[in-house]
Amino acid sequence: MLKLSIFKWVPDIVQGYQRDLRIRWALAEAGFQYEVMPKAISELKTPDYRKLQPFGQIPAFQDGDLTLFESGAILLHLAAKPGARIDLTGSEGLSKVTEWVVAALNSIEPFVMNMYEIELFHANEPWAEMKRPQMANMLNYRLKDLEAYLGDRSTLLKTFSVADIVMADILRGVENYGYLKRYPNLQRYLKACLARQSFKDSYDAQMAVYKLNEPSEKEKQRQMAAASPKAD
Amino acid sequence: MLKLSIFKWVPDIVQGYQRDLRIRWALAEAGFQYEVMPKAISELKTPDYRKLQPFGQIPAFQDGDLTLFESGAILLHLAAKPGARIDLTGSEGLSKVTEWVVAALNSIEPFVMNMYEIELFHANEPWAEMKRPQMANMLNYRLKDLEAYLGDRSTLLKTFSVADIVMADILRGVENYGYLKRYPNLQRYLKACLARQSFKDSYDAQMAVYKLNEPSEKEKQRQMAAASPKAD
Repeated sequence: MLKLSIFKWVPDIVQGYQRDLRIRWALAEAGFQYEVMPKAISELKTPDYRKLQPFGQIPAFQDGDLTLFESGAILLHLAAKPGARIDLTGSEGLSKVTEWVVAALNSIEPFVMNMYEIELFHANEPWAEMKRPQMANMLNYRLKDLEAYLGDRSTLLKTFSVADIVMADILRGVENYGYLKRYPNLQRYLKACLARQSFKDSYDAQMAVYKLNEPSEKEKQRQMAAASPKAD
Repeated sequence: MLKLSIFKWVPDIVQGYQRDLRIRWALAEAGFQYEVMPKAISELKTPDYRKLQPFGQIPAFQDGDLTLFESGAILLHLAAKPGARIDLTGSEGLSKVTEWVVAALNSIEPFVMNMYEIELFHANEPWAEMKRPQMANMLNYRLKDLEAYLGDRSTLLKTFSVADIVMADILRGVENYGYLKRYPNLQRYLKACLARQSFKDSYDAQMAVYKLNEPSEKEKQRQMAAASPKAD
């Protein structure tokens, strides 16, 4: 059986943006059945969970005896796995789909993470106000290149692939903050990806878990405090 | 023939940290012969080069008719390529080496890129001074988890792999800025990786190209101005 570790619940402000969604989406496209393993935020820092995910993050994945973390690696594992309903490599082979999965994760997402850091967590801090124009410039620099690459394509490779899953999942956050306004190709591409039934079903499934497990206000505060990054 | 696009020359302050080094290192470990294709910084923005690398970056790679960009994707392609002198997958299969390559690129490197952004390019700006403690905290948070995972291992997987190449290449920059002082396992791991003859040879080969092609002072200024990111 395939097993996917997910959050039992996350704060409202970030709901719908946890990376197990990428894996749910690929599993739905492939038609693979799987079991979810909901984890409380406090469980992620335990030695048992660290054996699955050394950085204490979601998602972690199990395929029989194989344990895997990193959404990009899990997606590429699923793209190479026999028995899928559609070819999730994009019909150009595993090296080419790896290229675009890595491009999404290393050439686009780091700049999007910096956008979230400012807009979601530090919007009103003095350093954030000073840095915002430079952050926006770096992000636009990459979006502009991606816009040019895409042209009128509706998929990054010949056919829909796990690279589209990760790229669309990254871009929907970017769109929320208005950064796709200048890029009609990116808007059209994103809309086509998110129109797939497998995305909608996966999004609904993620949100349903959070709704089911919504804690009391007091418990919410406790979990958010426990989740803050501390290096020492 | 394998072909690797590299910089003809880069400014002194960043020399030795271009990502073609990761590919040279893997090619040397594998014992694969290759040809380098030196590019002037101005060439990277041309339509011809964008066909190889849509973001106008180094490296790009060619293996016969297959063109590839993203250092992580090229490394994974080489790990899967038959005929290598050693098994660059780390003896645990392609999914597991993909996991650690992606971890290096998406869970460690984005925080290292933010370190460079401050320490190398904006050290004295007011926002950088304000943001440094938070940047350091986020980076340490990931380094601490990696330190715990490594323990007394000398490789991320059972044996040396392309994941060690990319992780060590990232960590040597971190060490230069003093961020490994608290982490004896990371220091020992990095030292073991960088002691490999294939790293030393690849580093020397990268630096030799820059030395050979060193431009006049006036030309240096022109190239640096042309390389600045502009989104519009």
